[in-house]
Amino acid sequence: MQWARIEHSGRSLFGAIDGDALRIHSGDMFRDPVPTGETVALAGAAWLTPCAPGKMLALWNNFRAAAERNGWGVPKEPLYFVKTDNSYNAHARIIPVPRSYDGRVVYEGELGIVIGKTAAAVSAADASGCIFGYTCVNDVTAVELTARDPVFPQWTRAKGFDGFGVFGPCIATGIDPLRLVIRTVVNGRERQNYPADDMIFRPAELVSLISQDMTLHAGDLIACGTSLGAMPMRPGTVIEVAIDGIGVLRNEYR
Amino acid sequence: MQWARIEHSGRSLFGAIDGDALRIHSGDMFRDPVPTGETVALAGAAWLTPCAPGKMLALWNNFRAAAERNGWGVPKEPLYFVKTDNSYNAHARIIPVPRSYDGRVVYEGELGIVIGKTAAAVSAADASGCIFGYTCVNDVTAVELTARDPVFPQWTRAKGFDGFGVFGPCIATGIDPLRLVIRTVVNGRERQNYPADDMIFRPAELVSLISQDMTLHAGDLIACGTSLGAMPMRPGTVIEVAIDGIGVLRNEYR
Repeated sequence: MQWARIEHSGRSLFGAIDGDALRIHSGDMFRDPVPTGETVALAGAAWLTPCAPGKMLALWNNFRAAAERNGWGVPKEPLYFVKTDNSYNAHARIIPVPRSYDGRVVYEGELGIVIGKTAAAVSAADASGCIFGYTCVNDVTAVELTARDPVFPQWTRAKGFDGFGVFGPCIATGIDPLRLVIRTVVNGRERQNYPADDMIFRPAELVSLISQDMTLHAGDLIACGTSLGAMPMRPGTVIEVAIDGIGVLRNEYR
Repeated sequence: MQWARIEHSGRSLFGAIDGDALRIHSGDMFRDPVPTGETVALAGAAWLTPCAPGKMLALWNNFRAAAERNGWGVPKEPLYFVKTDNSYNAHARIIPVPRSYDGRVVYEGELGIVIGKTAAAVSAADASGCIFGYTCVNDVTAVELTARDPVFPQWTRAKGFDGFGVFGPCIATGIDPLRLVIRTVVNGRERQNYPADDMIFRPAELVSLISQDMTLHAGDLIACGTSLGAMPMRPGTVIEVAIDGIGVLRNEYR
């Protein structure tokens, strides 16, 4: 199943993608959603983020190829930061060029894990059952901020500009995340193409380890980190994060 | 006015503190709340956090006395991190000792700014109008995590354990934040006592500067940072963050 949310005639609707249409459901997407019988054409729909995370966490240095190339070493534990709520941004929306920062802004194509039920100190075996599905993420980053202050690395700020936390277009359920390939296509040219199974900490392990410290709730999102090929964008750049089995998250930066 | 939220007979209620009681209101706390006529005694009430932030930001190195003592220098811009939603914790509740971390855990008594209306790229002059009021914050921190990985400082994790984002008991409106004094009393002994006007970036300036990058919404919380006297807690420690004009935020760590 592929779940999406749209705004339609002033209402926020969710449902399952069925070809070119969304079969609308009512209730809770994560728990026994019920089809209403209504169907809305996706062509021209105003996409929303497929869920509304209480928190969006994102991994740093979680792919072996990037760790090796950058000389970061393999971390002993998942290393993550937060993307704040103002950054949440949906498929087909504009990623706004910051007016308050003129340094490089980079796209990062990633796989996102969507939590489906509360995970508090769960084992890796139980963590799989807390995962609802997977989405595409563009973890947009104002890269020059992390090192601008000599003492304090500004990760929260670098990751949290309005519109920098892009995810969607849908949440795919019932798929094996380790068989996915994450591709990022920039102005029509492929710039990232890496397999999910090069991940250092894998989805169930991430959920289990993070949940030891922080309770995760339905709708929370964990972006698994990026690999090689993240590059700066210029205004006018169109970025597509494409994961077969999920979909294509397409946004213009301007 | 002092606004608080409580859970009462299975309902979440908010209202204005009137002596020993809460005068219940309906509608939106931030926008024309209407008294219902109902009054609930505060004695024995189950306190909730006085608002439900979409994001809780917190400043690092924002007091001159601490910057000087620690040799950090005066930052050129506000330096902040996030406290995630799972950390939100109310007055009179337990701060749980982490089971997944055995290093030092420190209290940090702080002044918190509660946003009252959307602030996006507002001037310092306009920022004051976006502030609803002020609350007491205990920015609990697993201090050994920020330096545990040799490359990546784990601020999100250090600040984000369940129950580590304590604020309340109420939001005080119509007060001058720069005349406040933040005191932290630990097991009955005063350990922090510092004036808000020693702040490097002051409330209106913080809201203005942060809002250039990140849109702030009603209910968002900005903890202004702590000054001297933050110390580790042992299980059984009772911490009170007391700010005359706001109230006393009291929690046990166990």
